[in-house]
Amino acid sequence: MKQSIGAKTIVFPTPVFVVGSYDAKGKPNIACVAWGGVCNSKPASLAISLRAATYSHGAIVHSQAFTVNVPSVAQVKQADYVGIYSGRDEDKFAALGLTAVRSELVNAPYVKEFPLVVECKLIHTFELGLHTQFIGEIADVKADEEVMTNGRIDVTKLQPLTFDPAGMGYYRVGEFIGQGFSIGKKPA
Amino acid sequence: MKQSIGAKTIVFPTPVFVVGSYDAKGKPNIACVAWGGVCNSKPASLAISLRAATYSHGAIVHSQAFTVNVPSVAQVKQADYVGIYSGRDEDKFAALGLTAVRSELVNAPYVKEFPLVVECKLIHTFELGLHTQFIGEIADVKADEEVMTNGRIDVTKLQPLTFDPAGMGYYRVGEFIGQGFSIGKKPA
Repeated sequence: MKQSIGAKTIVFPTPVFVVGSYDAKGKPNIACVAWGGVCNSKPASLAISLRAATYSHGAIVHSQAFTVNVPSVAQVKQADYVGIYSGRDEDKFAALGLTAVRSELVNAPYVKEFPLVVECKLIHTFELGLHTQFIGEIADVKADEEVMTNGRIDVTKLQPLTFDPAGMGYYRVGEFIGQGFSIGKKPA
Repeated sequence: MKQSIGAKTIVFPTPVFVVGSYDAKGKPNIACVAWGGVCNSKPASLAISLRAATYSHGAIVHSQAFTVNVPSVAQVKQADYVGIYSGRDEDKFAALGLTAVRSELVNAPYVKEFPLVVECKLIHTFELGLHTQFIGEIADVKADEEVMTNGRIDVTKLQPLTFDPAGMGYYRVGEFIGQGFSIGKKPA
């Protein structure tokens, strides 16, 4: 029997994206975003949503670019810190001992210490209500060699986080369950 | 050292959403979508992206509504089947022994056997290129009692799937790592 939970923003999984941008003075900043995901294959694009009140919102409007940095389970405290404090009040890279690397492809910094980064150029801005949805065209994806096996990203090495928007907890992406476009060919 | 992977649609986690809709004849259909996620808190909204060539694309344009059904790990074969075959050729509910329940809130069916469903009314349609992004306002979230603890969704009971867009594999959402807006207050 299904119970009604109400018109809430609850679905699984939601991501833990650490979004990098430069503010109007060129200072690198990072924000933590759970509302987002891939939204288009051609051009390869990624969507993130931010409230206008956030410091990163203004930075992305200014710089017309952003990065999405994927922390691993070992970096959960840093990711959560990024979501608690504002770049308006402090330099979060400095506070966390993280290194801002200037992207050579888009006008945004990425986090050197995080294992996977996606560099995006802003191509659409949609005002949806409380949140603005920024659509970024993906210029490149970069991954640390340590999270790759035979030239391909290895999820079990990457160990990305997911966020539970109902209970506000972080969860590990765990073991391999099956191969897509294969395991379900004969489901019975 | 980071390696360039190219301008690909690779980020983690991506979801495994089974999207329900009615076609022009009122036949319930389901599609499997990895491009999507929550995109706005007020009104509570969820985004999914579909190619115009898919059967569900036309159905959603027609019915102006959709549901997002979250399968558990035990339902991985059914979810994958949904992603392999087209509703143009067959009734996937019947093929999988699943039950289409008519939503009382939106003009779309949901999957009775899947533990979490999100009922959405289409409010925006954005043409992004190969994919159309459908933004649905969330009318309700419903969950099986079996995946709840003390009236709240329990991720360890829900056992949602995630998809790896690099290696095309399904992975389990695993154990609790830490509490959001808390674990990172003092990261050092």
